Amino acid sequence: MLGQQTAADRMDHIPFSGIREIFEECDRLEAAGEDVVHLEIGRPDFDTPKPIKDAAVSALDSGHVHYTSNYGISELRETIAAKFDRDNDIAYDPDQEVIVTTGATEAILVSVFAFVGQGDEVLVPNPSWTYAPSVRMAGGTPVSYSLDPETGFQPDLSELRENVSDRTELLIVNSPQNPTGGVVDEDRIDTLAEFAVENDLVVLSDEIYEKILYDDSEHHSLAAHPELYDRTISVNGVSKAYSMTGWRLGYLGAPEELIDPIIRVRQYTTTCAPSLSQHAAVRAIGSGLHEPMVEAFADRRDRLLERLDRIPGMDCPVPSGAFYAFPTLPEGYEDENEFVWSLLREKNVAMVPGSVFGSNGNGRLRIAYSNSVERIDEAFDRIEAWLADQ
Amino acid sequence: MLGQQTAADRMDHIPFSGIREIFEECDRLEAAGEDVVHLEIGRPDFDTPKPIKDAAVSALDSGHVHYTSNYGISELRETIAAKFDRDNDIAYDPDQEVIVTTGATEAILVSVFAFVGQGDEVLVPNPSWTYAPSVRMAGGTPVSYSLDPETGFQPDLSELRENVSDRTELLIVNSPQNPTGGVVDEDRIDTLAEFAVENDLVVLSDEIYEKILYDDSEHHSLAAHPELYDRTISVNGVSKAYSMTGWRLGYLGAPEELIDPIIRVRQYTTTCAPSLSQHAAVRAIGSGLHEPMVEAFADRRDRLLERLDRIPGMDCPVPSGAFYAFPTLPEGYEDENEFVWSLLREKNVAMVPGSVFGSNGNGRLRIAYSNSVERIDEAFDRIEAWLADQ
Repeated sequence: MLGQQTAADRMDHIPFSGIREIFEECDRLEAAGEDVVHLEIGRPDFDTPKPIKDAAVSALDSGHVHYTSNYGISELRETIAAKFDRDNDIAYDPDQEVIVTTGATEAILVSVFAFVGQGDEVLVPNPSWTYAPSVRMAGGTPVSYSLDPETGFQPDLSELRENVSDRTELLIVNSPQNPTGGVVDEDRIDTLAEFAVENDLVVLSDEIYEKILYDDSEHHSLAAHPELYDRTISVNGVSKAYSMTGWRLGYLGAPEELIDPIIRVRQYTTTCAPSLSQHAAVRAIGSGLHEPMVEAFADRRDRLLERLDRIPGMDCPVPSGAFYAFPTLPEGYEDENEFVWSLLREKNVAMVPGSVFGSNGNGRLRIAYSNSVERIDEAFDRIEAWLADQ
Repeated sequence: MLGQQTAADRMDHIPFSGIREIFEECDRLEAAGEDVVHLEIGRPDFDTPKPIKDAAVSALDSGHVHYTSNYGISELRETIAAKFDRDNDIAYDPDQEVIVTTGATEAILVSVFAFVGQGDEVLVPNPSWTYAPSVRMAGGTPVSYSLDPETGFQPDLSELRENVSDRTELLIVNSPQNPTGGVVDEDRIDTLAEFAVENDLVVLSDEIYEKILYDDSEHHSLAAHPELYDRTISVNGVSKAYSMTGWRLGYLGAPEELIDPIIRVRQYTTTCAPSLSQHAAVRAIGSGLHEPMVEAFADRRDRLLERLDRIPGMDCPVPSGAFYAFPTLPEGYEDENEFVWSLLREKNVAMVPGSVFGSNGNGRLRIAYSNSVERIDEAFDRIEAWLADQ
């Protein structure tokens, strides 16, 4: 069929996510009775804290079951604006400069659609997650810039300068990072600001992992930089901090001039975020309910690093945020796909090949420590035994 | 700024919805203490039925708070496939041919993005809602075909034949219709099938108002037609039937060959539909819980038609489905925008100018009867008094 053929050709650029194939293999293994250790899943494994669930039930009892404004309910926008002010030192007007979205994924989508058209270029981190397909769907071309493992995965400014062009509309920055666990330094933000101003770029700052930080690492919002405020869209959400991935509740803040095209697009994507999730988010944001979960992630990270340290070749910068490590392969291994699939099929331990996130993930693995210390130990006991047998 | 200027130019094609301006004026009037009668809102005014809410609470208690599959949970896909089989006489494989979306709006968006690229043309009904902006966002060109008021708003086949071209990829059909309340006849589906096959089109059939039918009108799914099954995407959801607009839960069914490009896009829009809403929808679909609401809509429609009948010039076909009437203006009035805004400001009665939905809405009004018989009477008492004063 004509339509189908055209679609198939165009859709070659919108790939199936490499993570999905791993998920599906895990399902098959578990259906066959195997005990799979999950280190592939990019979500907290905790239940949503009870006070947040209670807020949803209360909203349900009150009959908050109808469409809300495209922007989201006022109470949530005020909560979000107060959070941006308090946590990020950014002033957004809750009436005009905050949009609630169906997850941070939709916040990214509508931002990209608002600023990227046919033939436009977008600077995306390599490695990173989801940005490139959204850019392609908008008719744009993703142009990657490296995150440098030697500096804890800081954006490589020399690559940004090489790769920017007259057609570049948008710079996407993610910190804390998926898949590396890196956190962008405050100094680097100064140079990013200079770069964005020089090249007159809109900046999309994905800060969804903001609350998940370790040791003395600090999160700095790009929009808090005086040179960046006017040109930056700050994306965040409750999924990762409050273990609410299934609630689909994200948000963005931006100056009114940037909001205008975004809200136009947002009218036609999902109309509004789920009403119950909006009421639950009012309770979540600013509650501090994420803290025990972050403490658990810190313990898991420490154990994971101990176990990685025992395997020659599995090197990575200490993750400063999020819940991922992004190590190189054990000595003697070169192909991350072959490694991941062999490990999964032979030892039922699931990870994600680094190359899923871009060419700088070649020879690396994404290990999500959204699993207990005991299961991390179980996984690495199996890996050590497996490596010894090779 | 470069980026902002380019975006602003492109965004001229993605307009603010004309309904939103009415909403905002209503908010201002109510904030000033005015008693506004709402006949502008395109959603049921009922609470979600209690058994459906209970199912959501039960899912919450069970910890269903995490990401689901991009396709949606298995139990819901099975419920949806059984519904398509039972209600619509369409066989879809729940594992491969059903996708749960964040509202029917997202189902339309991902379908359009899967099949429409730069320069492609899409046939959209005139009048209709939301399709044209989605097509423009995908880089395509909406080409309208008339719904003919003389035939109860049936698609005008001669316009379809005139307006189709080699670049046409997709035909969008909506029945029961927003904003007209029209329902496409079974005979007309035969001719639509012939037309779609002749021109090798993919068909997007928006059936979101399926359950809201009056008198002896019947809903016929396009995909139930043997010539259309292979090329049709059937879009539906729980929002309108079960008064669940805030839950953001839609779905689509299509043969596997059409699903492939759609699920690729769907990975990057909202990841998955809200998990609680998915569990609630399992309870809703097939429950019959919509029936008392449809009876209430029928009573309201009858009263609305009585009241319209008393005003010379306010003519429309009897709505067979949905909860909208789409009459012409009272005698002596020509401009629907002027009429709506004057009526709202002088008498606090809110409706939508027909032209919001396309040029065939010029000289018409969309009246949503998602309000009580008493409030419909109150609105028309005010309108009659106002017209008498002119």
